[in-house]
Amino acid sequence: MVATTSVNMYPLANYTFGTKEPKMEKDTSVADRLARMKVNYLVLFHHSYHITIGFPNNADVQEHNHPHILLLQIGNTFCKLPGGRLKPGENEIEGLKRKLSSKLGANSPSFQQNWQIGECVAVWWRPNFETAMYPYCPPHITKPKECKKLFLVHLPEREFFAVPKNLKLLAVPLFELYDNVSRYGPVISTIPQQLSRFQFNMVSS
Amino acid sequence: MVATTSVNMYPLANYTFGTKEPKMEKDTSVADRLARMKVNYLVLFHHSYHITIGFPNNADVQEHNHPHILLLQIGNTFCKLPGGRLKPGENEIEGLKRKLSSKLGANSPSFQQNWQIGECVAVWWRPNFETAMYPYCPPHITKPKECKKLFLVHLPEREFFAVPKNLKLLAVPLFELYDNVSRYGPVISTIPQQLSRFQFNMVSS
Repeated sequence: MVATTSVNMYPLANYTFGTKEPKMEKDTSVADRLARMKVNYLVLFHHSYHITIGFPNNADVQEHNHPHILLLQIGNTFCKLPGGRLKPGENEIEGLKRKLSSKLGANSPSFQQNWQIGECVAVWWRPNFETAMYPYCPPHITKPKECKKLFLVHLPEREFFAVPKNLKLLAVPLFELYDNVSRYGPVISTIPQQLSRFQFNMVSS
Repeated sequence: MVATTSVNMYPLANYTFGTKEPKMEKDTSVADRLARMKVNYLVLFHHSYHITIGFPNNADVQEHNHPHILLLQIGNTFCKLPGGRLKPGENEIEGLKRKLSSKLGANSPSFQQNWQIGECVAVWWRPNFETAMYPYCPPHITKPKECKKLFLVHLPEREFFAVPKNLKLLAVPLFELYDNVSRYGPVISTIPQQLSRFQFNMVSS
């Protein structure tokens, strides 16, 4: 029953980045988003996920061999996990791949990404049309308004990402996320705890 | 690769409790503990774990069907996960079972508990002889001073626990732990996030 789950990581330098046309956010504020959710309430499930991108082998020595998480920055401060909402009836893994390609994939058909969706690491629930989410469905909530799942995405040894021009791709070390609710919010700031059970293998090449 | 891990839970009323002789803590403060760690530094690994005990089916209706975590209270406020340190060279799962029996097991040989140690849900590191622990080994720390692992323990449908007279056994709901660092500390207060990926099956009997 007890298994150590290990995850391969490759140097950040293995990954290359380009840009593509902007992907506009449907909502410019949480209030807008909640208002739209009420209208689209039939679409209950929303999924998100994060990527462990590996260790920088020629960057700041402080961060050597330390796992980094890919985040998309919108504007000057707001960070999101790459992901999005499922279409009605859509399989969650297929929807996740579609959203990853939309947010980070190259537009060229010759560059089709083969996303390796790994372990589910956390599930968050929104009980009401409000900003608060919880890592459990609170007692007596029979119809939660949103469910957000975070998955580990296993990256290949090398990859090309195309980042929408209006977003900035960040590789953030775990120690920067930890205990930093004010900057990253309750969901992203507890990713280090959720990943702590994994063993990370640094694969130099 | 993607699996939903499910955990069976049984009503709290299925469990019975007795008392046994006190189990004195070796240290009465964190400072004592850190001082003793320096002396016993060869024993690097320390393990802890938690138990999902199920749902109260005849208690406060607010808490119906909501998972509860078993904690041991020492004195008036301090709570610990049932567990302890491994002996040098001891297998971690065997050590865990030994500690569970010592803290919660009946003393009678006819009541031998068969602890089902499940998934590792978190790993915490103490980089220095200080109180701070982190859910990762910080970069450049080559000799962490302590490693604490938390495991899910699957309880049988019915069980008898004997609680040392100087301790109090609490079954605390997830919503009480969540975001409550001041009361439970950083390790215990993020258990809800670490358990969020599990699906809990409430088994009534």
